[in-house]
Amino acid sequence: MDANTPRNTLSEADQQLVNGVLAGQRRALAKTITLIESTRDDHQERANEILGELLPHSGKAIRLGISGVPGAGKSTFIEALGIWLIDHGYKLAVLAVDPSSSVSGGSILGDKTRMEQLCQRPGAFIRPSPSAGSLGGVAAKTRESMLACEAAGYDVILVETVGVGQSETTVAGMVDMFILVQLPNAGDDLQAIKKGIVEIADLVAINKSDINPQMSAIACAQWKQAIQMLRPTSPNWRPPVITLSALQKQGIDDFWSEIEKFREIMTKTGELEEKRKKQALAWMWSMIEGGLRQRFRNHPQVHAALPKLSGEVASGQITPGVAARTLLDYLDQH
Amino acid sequence: MDANTPRNTLSEADQQLVNGVLAGQRRALAKTITLIESTRDDHQERANEILGELLPHSGKAIRLGISGVPGAGKSTFIEALGIWLIDHGYKLAVLAVDPSSSVSGGSILGDKTRMEQLCQRPGAFIRPSPSAGSLGGVAAKTRESMLACEAAGYDVILVETVGVGQSETTVAGMVDMFILVQLPNAGDDLQAIKKGIVEIADLVAINKSDINPQMSAIACAQWKQAIQMLRPTSPNWRPPVITLSALQKQGIDDFWSEIEKFREIMTKTGELEEKRKKQALAWMWSMIEGGLRQRFRNHPQVHAALPKLSGEVASGQITPGVAARTLLDYLDQH
Repeated sequence: MDANTPRNTLSEADQQLVNGVLAGQRRALAKTITLIESTRDDHQERANEILGELLPHSGKAIRLGISGVPGAGKSTFIEALGIWLIDHGYKLAVLAVDPSSSVSGGSILGDKTRMEQLCQRPGAFIRPSPSAGSLGGVAAKTRESMLACEAAGYDVILVETVGVGQSETTVAGMVDMFILVQLPNAGDDLQAIKKGIVEIADLVAINKSDINPQMSAIACAQWKQAIQMLRPTSPNWRPPVITLSALQKQGIDDFWSEIEKFREIMTKTGELEEKRKKQALAWMWSMIEGGLRQRFRNHPQVHAALPKLSGEVASGQITPGVAARTLLDYLDQH
Repeated sequence: MDANTPRNTLSEADQQLVNGVLAGQRRALAKTITLIESTRDDHQERANEILGELLPHSGKAIRLGISGVPGAGKSTFIEALGIWLIDHGYKLAVLAVDPSSSVSGGSILGDKTRMEQLCQRPGAFIRPSPSAGSLGGVAAKTRESMLACEAAGYDVILVETVGVGQSETTVAGMVDMFILVQLPNAGDDLQAIKKGIVEIADLVAINKSDINPQMSAIACAQWKQAIQMLRPTSPNWRPPVITLSALQKQGIDDFWSEIEKFREIMTKTGELEEKRKKQALAWMWSMIEGGLRQRFRNHPQVHAALPKLSGEVASGQITPGVAARTLLDYLDQH
């Protein structure tokens, strides 16, 4: 597709999908996301055409990323928050990035029974993680699905991740605000810090605080101290630490008022717009670099020489610079 | 150059350089590094040929990265350590990565008067940062110079950086052990933590501890606590925090015994070899990716379309995926 030609090549069926999504029809949205997630070339082309039509209508939602250790009660939290939001007039879409889900079925969103109430609400749209591919590939599809949800009128997007490998960082790169759900355990914080997740958290929510309020207060203080030691995610925002109980539906108001505060500050300072621009460009470059790497590796001469040269670099027989230049030269030879 | 042909194309002059370096002649080493740092194509080719001959003789040194805020006394520390090392029979090369040095002259190694004593020792080889180019480019040249120094028989390599931008991370990617020199100031640690440098430190040395031993002890305790909260750089090593006074030459023994301990553990567990292999491959890939990006940006159609497409991605008119695919398709068209 050439970027300069107008995008009016939609088939009638796809135009109907576009209209359906824009009218807020869940069925049309689900079908569109199925096209986005498909690995078939013709589906990808259709998805791109449809997304092109939807894009001008996206961008109005607040995009939240949510992560936390297994057992922290993420699904209970998302359900409690979701019902609270719907009761307050919001429409909510819950998406997921879980590159492991094809193997382990690890995504909490796959386990719909755990969000039974939320699933039945018409204001909620819940979609498990795309199941195939690399983290980058899975996440790219979730990001495009997010845009489709926004075009369908969902004004809060939750992107959940179970925290496999680098998935938190990837999710943080597609949302406005990244939330860490934690348990009131000493040591729990250390895990998150060691994995380098705290650095990207814009808010830490300590769940299950009803079980032991004293321990919860200690955890809260520890977290505040830990966060103070890290570089802030934004010059205009110091990540708050709050306690709540998703099961008892306590603290959801406080949680949401922090979200609203964050959004207001980020909007007012222009940081939100700037952040989204940077995120979109970062996605573009990550896809370009992925494509360049793939082309490089698939080049016949590179493909043939790479294992030997890599081995020689690893064992110190040739310098990385000579290996890189040798391989790059192959690209220019034909 | 093809990786399969033997590298026996050295001119007589260059063979003399190789012989000189291997014999430990400082003049030959300095000339070789000048070729490495040169931007001229013919110099680069000669440098690669020479490095190819030197490589089998490299790798025996311990490679240390050193960083710290201005005023922490890095140059005094390097001088004190260097003299201590030479007095203990080591040969020491001090290199630097300072991408700002061409502009600001910021490298402490540029200011030779600050290492007056060390400069006069025959066992020390001191070389300021290559002055031109991007951080990656500057660092790549320093890394190759490091290999040349090793071939010349220097058994301790110090790579100093003044801490501009991402230079610490880059230096950490070429050394065995990364050392942070700090002042006994509360708040000094916060700076380092906020900049994300502590995460890569294998040892923290609190300098100038003679001035106020009590404050120094407090800083030491704070640092230990801070480090405990971060993920360790290795499963077999918890970064120690030590106090010393470079000016009074106090604590250098303790410092060096930590270095020896680190080296012993890393060698015994095989982690050092593994780390160096990974580092070499990471350098190769970073150079390949740099080359691919450059080729991509220089492609006439990409060059023409990139600004417009980037703008459309940033403003949300097209998805990052469509922009990436459009640009990548140009590469396949001719």
